[in-house]
Amino acid sequence: MENSKLKAFIPLFYLVWSDDLLSKKDFLTLQKFIISQNWLYKEEKETILSKIAISSPPSREVVANWKSEIETILQKNSLVKSIFDISILLSENDEMIKDNRSAFVQLENDLGISGEEALADFKTIANTFTANYQTNDSFEVEKLTKILDGNQSGIIKKVKSIISKPEFAYETSTDTAVYREKVYDWCKILAKENLGNMAYPKAYGGGENIADYFAIMETLSYHDLSLVIKFGVQFGLWGMSIQSLGTEKHYSKYLKDIGSLRLPGCFAMTETNHGSNVKGLETTATYNHENQTFTIHTPHEKAQKEYIGNAALHGQMATVFAKLIIGETDYGVNAFVVPLRDANNFILKGITIGDCGLKMGLNGVDNGTIRFDNVVIPKENMLDRFASVNDKGEFESPIPSDNRRFFTMLGTLVGGRIGIPRSALAAAKSGLTIAIKYSNQRRQFDPEGGTEVPILNYRIHQRRLLPLLAKTYATHFALQYVTKRFINKSESEMPEIEALAAGMKAYSTWSTTNILQECREACGGKGYLSENRIDALKNDTEIYTTFEGDNTVLMQLVAKNRLSEFRKSFGKMDAMGIINYVFENAKTAFSEKNPLITRKTDESHLIDEEFHLQAFHYREKTTLASAAKRLKKLIDSGLDPYDAYNVAQHQMIDVAQAYLERIVLEQFQQAIPTIEDKNCKEVMMRLYQLYALSQIEKNKGWYLEDGYMEAVKTKAIRKMVNQLCWEIRPDAVSLVKAFDIPDSCLGAPIAF
Amino acid sequence: MENSKLKAFIPLFYLVWSDDLLSKKDFLTLQKFIISQNWLYKEEKETILSKIAISSPPSREVVANWKSEIETILQKNSLVKSIFDISILLSENDEMIKDNRSAFVQLENDLGISGEEALADFKTIANTFTANYQTNDSFEVEKLTKILDGNQSGIIKKVKSIISKPEFAYETSTDTAVYREKVYDWCKILAKENLGNMAYPKAYGGGENIADYFAIMETLSYHDLSLVIKFGVQFGLWGMSIQSLGTEKHYSKYLKDIGSLRLPGCFAMTETNHGSNVKGLETTATYNHENQTFTIHTPHEKAQKEYIGNAALHGQMATVFAKLIIGETDYGVNAFVVPLRDANNFILKGITIGDCGLKMGLNGVDNGTIRFDNVVIPKENMLDRFASVNDKGEFESPIPSDNRRFFTMLGTLVGGRIGIPRSALAAAKSGLTIAIKYSNQRRQFDPEGGTEVPILNYRIHQRRLLPLLAKTYATHFALQYVTKRFINKSESEMPEIEALAAGMKAYSTWSTTNILQECREACGGKGYLSENRIDALKNDTEIYTTFEGDNTVLMQLVAKNRLSEFRKSFGKMDAMGIINYVFENAKTAFSEKNPLITRKTDESHLIDEEFHLQAFHYREKTTLASAAKRLKKLIDSGLDPYDAYNVAQHQMIDVAQAYLERIVLEQFQQAIPTIEDKNCKEVMMRLYQLYALSQIEKNKGWYLEDGYMEAVKTKAIRKMVNQLCWEIRPDAVSLVKAFDIPDSCLGAPIAF
Repeated sequence: MENSKLKAFIPLFYLVWSDDLLSKKDFLTLQKFIISQNWLYKEEKETILSKIAISSPPSREVVANWKSEIETILQKNSLVKSIFDISILLSENDEMIKDNRSAFVQLENDLGISGEEALADFKTIANTFTANYQTNDSFEVEKLTKILDGNQSGIIKKVKSIISKPEFAYETSTDTAVYREKVYDWCKILAKENLGNMAYPKAYGGGENIADYFAIMETLSYHDLSLVIKFGVQFGLWGMSIQSLGTEKHYSKYLKDIGSLRLPGCFAMTETNHGSNVKGLETTATYNHENQTFTIHTPHEKAQKEYIGNAALHGQMATVFAKLIIGETDYGVNAFVVPLRDANNFILKGITIGDCGLKMGLNGVDNGTIRFDNVVIPKENMLDRFASVNDKGEFESPIPSDNRRFFTMLGTLVGGRIGIPRSALAAAKSGLTIAIKYSNQRRQFDPEGGTEVPILNYRIHQRRLLPLLAKTYATHFALQYVTKRFINKSESEMPEIEALAAGMKAYSTWSTTNILQECREACGGKGYLSENRIDALKNDTEIYTTFEGDNTVLMQLVAKNRLSEFRKSFGKMDAMGIINYVFENAKTAFSEKNPLITRKTDESHLIDEEFHLQAFHYREKTTLASAAKRLKKLIDSGLDPYDAYNVAQHQMIDVAQAYLERIVLEQFQQAIPTIEDKNCKEVMMRLYQLYALSQIEKNKGWYLEDGYMEAVKTKAIRKMVNQLCWEIRPDAVSLVKAFDIPDSCLGAPIAF
Repeated sequence: MENSKLKAFIPLFYLVWSDDLLSKKDFLTLQKFIISQNWLYKEEKETILSKIAISSPPSREVVANWKSEIETILQKNSLVKSIFDISILLSENDEMIKDNRSAFVQLENDLGISGEEALADFKTIANTFTANYQTNDSFEVEKLTKILDGNQSGIIKKVKSIISKPEFAYETSTDTAVYREKVYDWCKILAKENLGNMAYPKAYGGGENIADYFAIMETLSYHDLSLVIKFGVQFGLWGMSIQSLGTEKHYSKYLKDIGSLRLPGCFAMTETNHGSNVKGLETTATYNHENQTFTIHTPHEKAQKEYIGNAALHGQMATVFAKLIIGETDYGVNAFVVPLRDANNFILKGITIGDCGLKMGLNGVDNGTIRFDNVVIPKENMLDRFASVNDKGEFESPIPSDNRRFFTMLGTLVGGRIGIPRSALAAAKSGLTIAIKYSNQRRQFDPEGGTEVPILNYRIHQRRLLPLLAKTYATHFALQYVTKRFINKSESEMPEIEALAAGMKAYSTWSTTNILQECREACGGKGYLSENRIDALKNDTEIYTTFEGDNTVLMQLVAKNRLSEFRKSFGKMDAMGIINYVFENAKTAFSEKNPLITRKTDESHLIDEEFHLQAFHYREKTTLASAAKRLKKLIDSGLDPYDAYNVAQHQMIDVAQAYLERIVLEQFQQAIPTIEDKNCKEVMMRLYQLYALSQIEKNKGWYLEDGYMEAVKTKAIRKMVNQLCWEIRPDAVSLVKAFDIPDSCLGAPIAF
């Protein structure tokens, strides 16, 4: 094309033939444009049209030449801002072209190629900040690890050194039988190291150190989760049921052997027909005064014990929960020690064991079913801390109500609801470590002319993983707090601590399910290969949201506890009372709901801890007061309370959620001032801010609906979340390294 | 207690001793109350205090007597509204008690036992509507099945009859080798039934029926998902790559044998280092003119083909994507047929096969890696529909741009992005059938004195499952639409259909992941047992969000397509232009954002299809216009377009999401008028409303932020969602039965 005027069309030729977003229709648009330009001669039009005839495409070389002509222009002229600018330069500043600027600009609009963006394809060296961004630690990893491990760093190191030994190499067989034996063997090693009996009294060979016991559970969770659950069933559920529900005679008889794993056992509570509603268990323990025995019996098939860990293969005894029957009277659910197998592992008469078979995960644990056909046990096998049968064959208990007694018994077992969320936390840490380390190395897509970019540099990838990393740190501190509260509990605090543990169990396990889902997707196909362990982490922890109490049921328990506390303080619930409750006092109400605050968007306000705490508190109190009012209104209007609670069920979940989020926020806030190292403190502060703001963002619908925030503010918060993700990204790898998960446990090749 | 006045305290005694929400602190509250009542004599106080001394609890019988006294009062007096009312009646209307009403009421408040709710524990026969609710079909299941199956009902019935045969009994071995062979055998049976070649031209033994082919994929997905994927790899990916990228010589040579499974093969695109960014593939195909061959080569380990289905065991050939090199020139990625194994299944020279090993799911598919060490193939093995090497050894193509050619090639393979979301849909249907049928039978918890209630009667359980059921129906109609568009496509529609298929692939597969997660949790422990099949459904479909295009990447493609369309219409994007675009015209803008509308909450408006469509359209257009503006602003301010897209990445996802939600809504809307049966139509209308409103509820943060809805309206919508869940619940079981999944495929014992 010698005619320099016609050269102005080169960028358009190039784009219609090469851009994969332009379609056949765009050829027509361009043709029409050319035909309608009356400043072009007929022959010129024909020449131009011939270049974009669909029936005779240009050769590959011609297209390449067009491109190189455009590139040359761009290299020489850094001020080029649009396709039209190129056209002018190619035409050697032809006046005709210049005069037709508006027509060309309109064409660019019609083709969707206006502005600088359309030039991206021609840039040969891209120096983008997206591509240049990278890992750049701002703190010392070891110092942060020390902060996380705290007082338990000794036992954590010990456990890590054990599970890093060659005999703890992961089992790769898909044969369940092989896997179960391997897990059992691992448990024996741990017992030998005196890890199993860590929480038992020293008098019975234990370590009398509950804090260490929980740290063991959590640290073991970096390794195989079947191991943790088998360990927890034996030393936690089975052993602690003896310790919590039994008395001296049981301790001296069983605890030492349980702690050493000479006496493997089960915790047989759940039945096929009763999982969440354990008050309704149907197994019976009938007292026979003539020979001082109990007869344990399964009245029908669906009253069999189900999902019982250690039952299918190894358990020799079980703590069995059954309704105590004396004479004609049902005294509610109590606990009894029932032998299942003899020392040679033969199943005893009257006992029928089933195998739960293949499960979604945790296949190293031998879950089974147990049926009792009139199994007779001696009287002393009743775990009699809270209830007993006296010498006259009469029922005795310091707790006169069956209902209250049963819940008191359950309350003593709340430790399981601390061990599980801490195990879930460790699994989340493993998943995030794998996903973040991989995302830092995995490169995909490149700016034109550049090299491919680590996927962790992509904003959407950061948004997927980094708020979850922040949540994991937050949960870490919250679970430390729950553990401390549990260990130092006084009796009057028990209802609160039970609700707290139940709630944090739900919070942490749901969080882990969600985190591992994101991690799997973030690792793409590699995340689907079992060798990279997200498979096991995800499938093993999947049941965490169900066992030790179904999360949805637990959340309702939490809400009921909160409502009960609320009613005690604000029984009357008049309008002013509620305002005072929600805002501490009416004066704060005025200032918090002041438009200056609801619309406040400056950065220093958005990252202000006071603002966060007030917002979380406000949501907690408002959802609680509103659920209480709603229930009252429904019941006052004639609804049966049972129906009323059902109608308000989704509000109950909100109440629990808001309460837990406030607790978690508060604990993260309180952890930061205790950090001495300046660099650690700074990165933790940013991570804290990301947690706080991403939670508010998640709940923005609620805040907007309530009027506590206006749209300008929630939009500013979204922006701030993006910003914090970007700022934290260079530290992301170090932040997962600080979890200090042994390489052999992490396993995943993609993490190295 | 003979003193009738003192009897007024019985309910309080009973509650402090038995209610599990009252704690030790409440004993103190009650003690203080008693001490402070100066109308009681000292001896009376002492008597009363003795009943609540923690150190000497009453006997179980005493507590039981208290309860029965209270129950007697309640049975005789139906108007009792509070604990205090009982106290008065027990005291035989003692004047002293009556006079102290306010003190007692205050005490009730302090203990949190005010109002009727506190009476729930004493009701012996509860006739709650929660407990009485049950399945109660409003329509004939078969009629709805017919509507869903439509024109494909013939082939669907045929496939169901085949997969219900005894030879299709599920494989239960955990040995991958056994499972893989079983799946291969199943594929052979299907091939014999002429199901594999359904989409191929009749000239090559095929059925030339693409609609039936997709129906086969979907129906097979009720059975084992490894089977579907193995089937899809062979007949879809491998076969269709020949059909779409090859020419007559390839069809006649391969298609018949592929369709009959005499020639098992692979689709070898993905490499370790290039999954999403396939334009960057590194395998080379170097042309040698002297002997008219190509040399296929893997330049380094991370350029190996990975995750390739059929590679580890059975594939004899593969369509290999590789960069074509002629002389010094790289002509971009093209496709070549490369033999991997001989007829005796021995791996050929130069080929190295690896096994991807155990995966999270789909273990019946033999995914493998392939490396090529200078493998020589004849020239005719180039799939030359879009590019070829001519007799002179020169490159030739009707598409002069390498970039555009590659995306044109990929575009012909878009069928896979219809098969996968339809398979995902079927898996979601299976999961919901299992979870809803189980929830209809599983009973847990009871109103005091009643029988346990099916968990599907609980509102939170309905909220978990029923909006997802609605979404599944919605997705069904949307995927029918995408299939129809794909089958009847004209060339100019291709970019739109590609974006639509990519988007619906992401929409449907994410939806399935989410649905199966809820189903697992909704089935509790039973959902964790492999026998109930949620395990397999969940783990097999987990990779659906990654393969055939990572969902997050696909969503960005969709957004780019939408932005390109938008720019063509509204290149200038002045303020008025955007308003006109978003609202169709400024007049509608005024009426839609009118406070009368943004606050409108009457039921007839909330369930109005016009309202829904406008709201979905509005969101779609606003997110699109806003992303376009944002990108322009960022680029105008000097950002490299690559960086600008990264900054706006989360908005891109919103753009795609809003577009897809509008498509799905529209298709659900359009399906309903075509239903003739009145009862089916009614239930589908309710289900449609639930879909529409639960999506708006999900996006309420956005609508509130935008000002399109105000809080009164989003609150009314939440209420309406609850209401619709409750109304649909009696039909829920029939609605899943209408999916008509063969019992043998469903498998799960809990579903029967």
